[in-house]
Amino acid sequence: MPELRKDPMSRRWVIIATERAARPTDFRQEDPEPSDLDKCPFCEGREEKTPPEIFAFRAPGTAPNSPGWRVRVVSNKFPALRIEGQTERTKVGIFTRMDGVGAHEVIVETTNHHTHLGLLPPEHIADVVRAYLQRYRDLRGDTRFEYVLLFRNHRRRAGASLSHPHSQLIALPIVPKRASEEVEAAEMFFGQEGACIYCTMLAQEVDAKQRLIFENEKFTVLAPYASRHPFETWILPKQHQADFGDLEPASELSFAQALGETLRRLDSCLHNPPYNFIIHTLPYKHETRHAYHWHVEIIPSLTHVAGFEWGSGFYINPVIPEEAARFLREATTTVPAVAKIR
Amino acid sequence: MPELRKDPMSRRWVIIATERAARPTDFRQEDPEPSDLDKCPFCEGREEKTPPEIFAFRAPGTAPNSPGWRVRVVSNKFPALRIEGQTERTKVGIFTRMDGVGAHEVIVETTNHHTHLGLLPPEHIADVVRAYLQRYRDLRGDTRFEYVLLFRNHRRRAGASLSHPHSQLIALPIVPKRASEEVEAAEMFFGQEGACIYCTMLAQEVDAKQRLIFENEKFTVLAPYASRHPFETWILPKQHQADFGDLEPASELSFAQALGETLRRLDSCLHNPPYNFIIHTLPYKHETRHAYHWHVEIIPSLTHVAGFEWGSGFYINPVIPEEAARFLREATTTVPAVAKIR
Repeated sequence: MPELRKDPMSRRWVIIATERAARPTDFRQEDPEPSDLDKCPFCEGREEKTPPEIFAFRAPGTAPNSPGWRVRVVSNKFPALRIEGQTERTKVGIFTRMDGVGAHEVIVETTNHHTHLGLLPPEHIADVVRAYLQRYRDLRGDTRFEYVLLFRNHRRRAGASLSHPHSQLIALPIVPKRASEEVEAAEMFFGQEGACIYCTMLAQEVDAKQRLIFENEKFTVLAPYASRHPFETWILPKQHQADFGDLEPASELSFAQALGETLRRLDSCLHNPPYNFIIHTLPYKHETRHAYHWHVEIIPSLTHVAGFEWGSGFYINPVIPEEAARFLREATTTVPAVAKIR
Repeated sequence: MPELRKDPMSRRWVIIATERAARPTDFRQEDPEPSDLDKCPFCEGREEKTPPEIFAFRAPGTAPNSPGWRVRVVSNKFPALRIEGQTERTKVGIFTRMDGVGAHEVIVETTNHHTHLGLLPPEHIADVVRAYLQRYRDLRGDTRFEYVLLFRNHRRRAGASLSHPHSQLIALPIVPKRASEEVEAAEMFFGQEGACIYCTMLAQEVDAKQRLIFENEKFTVLAPYASRHPFETWILPKQHQADFGDLEPASELSFAQALGETLRRLDSCLHNPPYNFIIHTLPYKHETRHAYHWHVEIIPSLTHVAGFEWGSGFYINPVIPEEAARFLREATTTVPAVAKIR
């Protein structure tokens, strides 16, 4: 059983993923880019190679766990957390632990092994977003969980172990530290200013223009003022909304368009960079929804300074955010063709 | 002038290192290991290739900025911060900024290009530690600064851009977030329990044994209970001490021995792994010294999941800390020969 442990010195929870336990020899220092087409478990026709299907968008008349799907959600075959169990905390001297209970799912974004989320037509990306929402809302109903973390690792250097386009979801029995901190800062700002800090920041940035990348009907894309990483990019809903799970059907396509266009601009400037994106959302059991504002943070993996920076909580960014925004604002991209002929 | 910017959403300060400003094309995605012997500015005889010497241990009668040194400290040629200027904070709407004032120095650990800190004799490592202390104490006297961050990046993957053995030091006009958080947690524990949380943890771990790696006269080396990273290793002074700058001369060699032995055991188990180490110390202007306890955190760079984890503040560690401790406890190493014949 995996285990959750809390470090009382930094107040961070960590998953000790015992069922993935590695020996020193398991760490290759030169990880090649995965080239796994021959045996890719996410390709169409290999549905039996994954755990059973949890959710899918598929052609009428096709059966679960068979070909005919567009987007398919399965459990992670090597989950960091297990779905069975209880979430009692126990003390080990000054430490705290609990069983590693949670969900770890994979959202396979397309049957096409050789594409990238941003290269899918907007309507297809919207189906990926709808799959995120279906799983998010379903897991929000499990009272053992406190947070659903949706994220995407692109390329080996950003942590992807399979190259077939996919996102991941982890439902957690604790709130990640970063989420708690953001909510706390947002609540404090609301207490002082009577406004959402993200709405206030959006108004300021739209006015200042220099860090804006683009906007569409319902979303704003920008380089954050204090970007920690080169070409860090955030996508925020223009209207205040605390919980990603509350995204309305009428906004799904607009979000998909913003996400796709952002990824294409990063591709255009940085040539298929490794990256991570994470959907930052209100811990859904939080009482009030006025202060926090969900958003996506996209972090290209361009520099090699991670250990120092995560160890110190202190970042050095060699790219001026206004310059990064200008490159991304001026990038030219083509919306994938299938979308155009619809 | 570099700039310090604060993100009010996460309350993190970031250095925007404008004088290193990079264009998108500056990011190579496949960084080779540096092989720079021909023009290495840190090799003996090339002293004119670095900024002027700030401090050195050198043979009697040799002049600064000439051969004859054992350990040499110079300013970083491409500093993230500049030593001239003031530390006034100004508001930019909801954001805060200040000039990027600080010190950024390089501690060149040896004239030997092809070695590693852990492979130097303990007495030589002690000289490196004495150079750390000399610079730390000197910069502690500059009232503009709040924190001196001492760290080492080993190999390209952990952020080293030159392979010649060296450590770095950054003096900051702010306290890094991680340091503030650790002090806050330690002060709260002291308020509740009347004891240092690190001293309490050390007593518990010495008793439990399973996460201990080794001890020497004055230092304990262990795998932390909630290790965030595979083979994460901490070195702590056995006696309570808050500020690294207060290390007594009688403890310098013991610390050097613990540091060298730890690095050799990591080498032995993981074959020259990339790593970062950071000295975590009390922000020296802090009023009370009873709660916090300085220590070294060593983080091997073995996995590729950084972006996700630093974005969420949530870590997945595939190696059980007790297993990592056992491997490191049982590792056999040889103390470098020069030390033996002394």
